[in-house]
Amino acid sequence: MSAPFVSIRNLQNHEGKTVAVRGWLYNRRGSKKLHFLQVRDGTGIVQAVAVKGDDEELFERAGQSGQEASVVVTGSVKLDERAPGGVELKLTDFAEVGAAHDYPLGKKDHGPDFLLSHRHLWLRSRRPTATLRIRDTIIRAIRNHLYQEGFANVDAPMFTPNACEGTTTLFEVDYFDDTKAYLTQSGQLYMEAAALALGKVYCFGPAFRAEKSKTRKHLTEFWMLEPEMAYASLEDAMTLAESLLAAVVGRVLEENRTDLETLERDVSKLEAIVPPFPRIRYEEAAAILKDKTGFKFGDDFGAPDEAAITEGLDKPLLITHWPHEVKAFYMKRDPEDDRWALGVDVIAPEGFGEIVGGGERATDLAFLDSQLKAHDLPEEDFRWYLDLRRYGSVPHAGFGLGLERTVAWICGLQHIREAIPFPRLLHRIYP
Amino acid sequence: MSAPFVSIRNLQNHEGKTVAVRGWLYNRRGSKKLHFLQVRDGTGIVQAVAVKGDDEELFERAGQSGQEASVVVTGSVKLDERAPGGVELKLTDFAEVGAAHDYPLGKKDHGPDFLLSHRHLWLRSRRPTATLRIRDTIIRAIRNHLYQEGFANVDAPMFTPNACEGTTTLFEVDYFDDTKAYLTQSGQLYMEAAALALGKVYCFGPAFRAEKSKTRKHLTEFWMLEPEMAYASLEDAMTLAESLLAAVVGRVLEENRTDLETLERDVSKLEAIVPPFPRIRYEEAAAILKDKTGFKFGDDFGAPDEAAITEGLDKPLLITHWPHEVKAFYMKRDPEDDRWALGVDVIAPEGFGEIVGGGERATDLAFLDSQLKAHDLPEEDFRWYLDLRRYGSVPHAGFGLGLERTVAWICGLQHIREAIPFPRLLHRIYP
Repeated sequence: MSAPFVSIRNLQNHEGKTVAVRGWLYNRRGSKKLHFLQVRDGTGIVQAVAVKGDDEELFERAGQSGQEASVVVTGSVKLDERAPGGVELKLTDFAEVGAAHDYPLGKKDHGPDFLLSHRHLWLRSRRPTATLRIRDTIIRAIRNHLYQEGFANVDAPMFTPNACEGTTTLFEVDYFDDTKAYLTQSGQLYMEAAALALGKVYCFGPAFRAEKSKTRKHLTEFWMLEPEMAYASLEDAMTLAESLLAAVVGRVLEENRTDLETLERDVSKLEAIVPPFPRIRYEEAAAILKDKTGFKFGDDFGAPDEAAITEGLDKPLLITHWPHEVKAFYMKRDPEDDRWALGVDVIAPEGFGEIVGGGERATDLAFLDSQLKAHDLPEEDFRWYLDLRRYGSVPHAGFGLGLERTVAWICGLQHIREAIPFPRLLHRIYP
Repeated sequence: MSAPFVSIRNLQNHEGKTVAVRGWLYNRRGSKKLHFLQVRDGTGIVQAVAVKGDDEELFERAGQSGQEASVVVTGSVKLDERAPGGVELKLTDFAEVGAAHDYPLGKKDHGPDFLLSHRHLWLRSRRPTATLRIRDTIIRAIRNHLYQEGFANVDAPMFTPNACEGTTTLFEVDYFDDTKAYLTQSGQLYMEAAALALGKVYCFGPAFRAEKSKTRKHLTEFWMLEPEMAYASLEDAMTLAESLLAAVVGRVLEENRTDLETLERDVSKLEAIVPPFPRIRYEEAAAILKDKTGFKFGDDFGAPDEAAITEGLDKPLLITHWPHEVKAFYMKRDPEDDRWALGVDVIAPEGFGEIVGGGERATDLAFLDSQLKAHDLPEEDFRWYLDLRRYGSVPHAGFGLGLERTVAWICGLQHIREAIPFPRLLHRIYP
């Protein structure tokens, strides 16, 4: 029994050969004379067939393992278009590695709380596995695209002495000797420093928001990509966001067709994601929404506004030129009209909402200084940030992309908690 | 003046052409008749030469910007082997974008505290820029290698309800409604769950240790890579660590020759990093060190022990089969001799110390249950972890690789604080 071990995704290259698959028993159907064993190994699911007449003892043995027992199934590879994955194994040996009795996740529907409490096991189910594989592709596609565009990965710190965008949603940490640190909400300010050193940089790591809201779109801990470019404008940031999103969606379409099928994602919606994306100014969007949703000029867009403004669009929408009061203190003002901040939000189609926020940064020392005062931010904490305007200031721009929101959109998930391996929510830090 | 903008690293492809470089004035030397302007843009440094007789006004203008002023220099590209980077620009235009007066980082030596307090500017200096570029290559090489080996990136959570390896070095966070969360020290337990779902997985994110020690090898916040494989042994983990480290060093040698030169790294030391790496059991290492450093059997190795045991070696050393008392509760015992845990530490040569720790994980439910009790760990918090042995347990193995320690070794840095963009230390969370 020295059949070579083969991953399920590679089985199709071994037609007619006898191979062994190491995995877990996902499901078993059959009759008194036939077992159909569905075995998963993380790369796919294959069906192994045992016929009672062929080998009574093997047939008996193969019928005894419980759901999610770890098993090694050996058999000859048969291409079969009707079989899931296009391949079937004719069982010639079967060994249970680790037993499983009364696996808690059954065929019946479980509530979200039960599933979240069993996330360590739930990951093994088809949808979570497919989602995590797509998430992996998205991360890789993002990093590859930025590498090709000349960016260097520079990590921002998690512990910060200050709040980038207000203090109400900060997690506080007991640092040493009675000092307090805060968990980062954004690495942007640090990326501005790094862009002035390395030109084009990005950080891609966890960010934290202590929001007490329970919505489909919030996690207390999520991953954020933040590219930042020196000698760059709002236009450059928009071009990068477009090309990046298109590259990511394209890569998923290339690598994860089976996973998208598992998730029953309408692939035609993804195939439409080709630049250029439509652009609209805040002012126009507000005018359109006034009648549709009762939107009030000067507000930020809520989920219903985002859904309404993207209705009928098949691509992400870029909303630009925001009232500066809505945006962060570091935004550059439109030189042609001081009311507007040169920011951009990217709203995903199909109601998935905002996935990117960014823009051009203010370069002028005196302006930023006045903004800190206007926003009541402690100048002491931002002294280093002002240095970036004191010594060789340049136009620069960038954005933040929420990884899980992007995963939710591409996978078509109704709730963002499914877009991260171990979601952290208002009342959940287990497992 | 519509010369195309070119990155300094690409200048050599534009011989004879007139191009513009957008960057910062790194240094200026010269005489009454010549300016040598060293301009950096994050991708390299180029020298632009202005001759007084050619254009008096331009010569005057080019001589007035301060160190680290942002400048756009236009000129014709001349290949010149003597010039740094092999390329020189003959200046035809010069524009200052943002001024800089009295840039605080001069030519003179600054103390580490001064430099760390100016990390946002210090990043622009040669050594930090070179280090960050190499760090970027290392991250990319790690991810590429694992992708080629069939791994999926699955992120572990930052907020955890429990301590993976003891509670004394945990950072505590005020979560909601008086609950406490702890910042992760390791994603391993989560990766074990993910490996049983996806086969081969890794997380690569921040980890935290509230250690009150001030050493050259500790950060309170660092990045850790943690691959985990289902159906894998100690041997598999060692093979992966070897191939990964070799791939990473190889990639840096390929992409970062100039940066290694800037750091004055002895490249021959890196060229020697080719598998297989030497292996030694803890017992043998302890016997050798007894005389050399007075090492006591049963201890963990300190920095002097690590330096002594790797003396004369030109490759990383793998130390295996540890007394189980030294290692974590989840380690598998050697089936041939129960005293030993099937762990492995990888010690970098040249005194850079431990960069990898890992091994094979215990698979038996009853054994792990008894270990939790023996280590006084709250079973309630680890209930989910025990589920992994209750339902389809399999042999599995993996390791943790400290990114900054690896960067410090490859770059030849004396202190780990230089291996991360914004170091967090016992008394430092600024900038």
